[in-house]
Amino acid sequence: MSKEQRAQVDAMLRQPRPEGPRSIEAIRAGFEALMAQMIVPEDIRAIRTTLGDRPALRVEPDSGPRTGTILYLHGGGWVYGSPESVLSLTGHLVVKTGFEAYSVDYRLAPEHPFPAAIDDALSAYRALLDSGRNPSTIAFAGDSAGGGLTVTTCLAARDAGLPLPAALVMFSPGLDATRTGESMDTKEGIDPILTRTSVEHTGAMYLAGQDPHQPLLSPAVLADLTGFPPMLLQVGTNEILLDDSTRLAARARAVGVDVILDITADVPHVFQSFVGVLDEADRALDRAALFLSQHVHTPDTAAAPAG
Amino acid sequence: MSKEQRAQVDAMLRQPRPEGPRSIEAIRAGFEALMAQMIVPEDIRAIRTTLGDRPALRVEPDSGPRTGTILYLHGGGWVYGSPESVLSLTGHLVVKTGFEAYSVDYRLAPEHPFPAAIDDALSAYRALLDSGRNPSTIAFAGDSAGGGLTVTTCLAARDAGLPLPAALVMFSPGLDATRTGESMDTKEGIDPILTRTSVEHTGAMYLAGQDPHQPLLSPAVLADLTGFPPMLLQVGTNEILLDDSTRLAARARAVGVDVILDITADVPHVFQSFVGVLDEADRALDRAALFLSQHVHTPDTAAAPAG
Repeated sequence: MSKEQRAQVDAMLRQPRPEGPRSIEAIRAGFEALMAQMIVPEDIRAIRTTLGDRPALRVEPDSGPRTGTILYLHGGGWVYGSPESVLSLTGHLVVKTGFEAYSVDYRLAPEHPFPAAIDDALSAYRALLDSGRNPSTIAFAGDSAGGGLTVTTCLAARDAGLPLPAALVMFSPGLDATRTGESMDTKEGIDPILTRTSVEHTGAMYLAGQDPHQPLLSPAVLADLTGFPPMLLQVGTNEILLDDSTRLAARARAVGVDVILDITADVPHVFQSFVGVLDEADRALDRAALFLSQHVHTPDTAAAPAG
Repeated sequence: MSKEQRAQVDAMLRQPRPEGPRSIEAIRAGFEALMAQMIVPEDIRAIRTTLGDRPALRVEPDSGPRTGTILYLHGGGWVYGSPESVLSLTGHLVVKTGFEAYSVDYRLAPEHPFPAAIDDALSAYRALLDSGRNPSTIAFAGDSAGGGLTVTTCLAARDAGLPLPAALVMFSPGLDATRTGESMDTKEGIDPILTRTSVEHTGAMYLAGQDPHQPLLSPAVLADLTGFPPMLLQVGTNEILLDDSTRLAARARAVGVDVILDITADVPHVFQSFVGVLDEADRALDRAALFLSQHVHTPDTAAAPAG
């Protein structure tokens, strides 16, 4: 039963974890070990490559991709995570859409604070455009901090005068370095993964003393989303970051952007990682795949590009 | 181009229309004539029947339905509309899901004010349950006033001690007889179909002097949605009813209900009626069909019922 699955995932995440401060290296290694347990589909190829000036993982269906590219930006508080840690997510998106994905190994804080991650994501997008790909065939997708990067990279692309991608897909995005969402308080303790203390800890490394009151750091409260492509926000109710998504959705609809705010109850941060274990994860990824297929242009849809 | 399609639909709807008060009969006939222009798929069967004590239209794929029933409630301000006027919507939902639909000819105001429509919809649901259908194989769907009925009928079912259906799908639902949504003012004149005057005109016939401050008339501001099934709300930004949906979605997520708030920019009230003409309509119905398929249980999914 799915209700039982949701409760099991919640209980698992509440197991005692190491207390006290840990080194950056220990945090990164622990996260990679955790995420290595997630289910990766068998019928994909993952090839190490470079995009822009950064390493990247190109993920494609075994049978070869059809036209359509997902530029994927992994989560991990801008401090940890990698293309490998999200291979379950990119792999399933690739299988469900038939598209290729480029998962970018952008630079991390504290060694490389804001805006290094955005610079790297923008360079990756520019490299895709320079390769001859039409922007209407490219979507940005990402989870947590990487979900935030889909928006801020799109803002940076607009500022740079680049054409925008066809769609944005965000799983539990982090969109507010001012930490003013109501859910920051109302979901404290309900969220089995993140706390205000934990997100402020990694957030401070990314900020490195810079003012959080700027659109590239807090798009949910400050970004002008005019002209943005259709966006899909998926988030659980057991998340302190819930209202990052609800506020971005409100900003988007206020300026005439197509936006789907897709909320699943009683599931944690980036619950899609539990694909194959939690029915809601599979279903959410199926909805994300349909959304991508509707907005990313392929030769089949090229005659009728979305506005 | 889809942007052009959106603009064309908007311009078409802004054509001059007959001025001044019209009789109920003229309003009903005019609406049926308008909706008769919508595209109905060819590969369906529509059979007149009864459900509960009311006439109904049973719509099914030509090839025969698979398990799964949509109880459809048509729009028309609780004053006009019929199962025939929404045959485009029910027909396309049936083709896209493979389910059967029962479209109920519930009693209309002013002859039969609140709560006659809810009574009839509840009787129809009870008849489906009495026929041996499992509630997990039934979804409620509706547009405009009928979208509102999906919620109020679900409230009435809960009050009656009945098991709830598997999902609710709403297209531009009317959910607030107190008319307090911000969009009632901010979208006046932007909405090419409805005005405060027009919805208050038909709304008064349905109210018949009763207090609008009750959950069965204003669920977006007063209903306790605890225990409700997953819901999908689709609405356009060019609608005075936009905030009926945004407020219902907020109420749903506050009490732990799965809820998708699916907003399309620059499209009018029940834009899904323009299926086959407006790309956004086809895409929205595809998303609704996936949502229904994910939550309505079929023999394939019966082993893993949703929570």
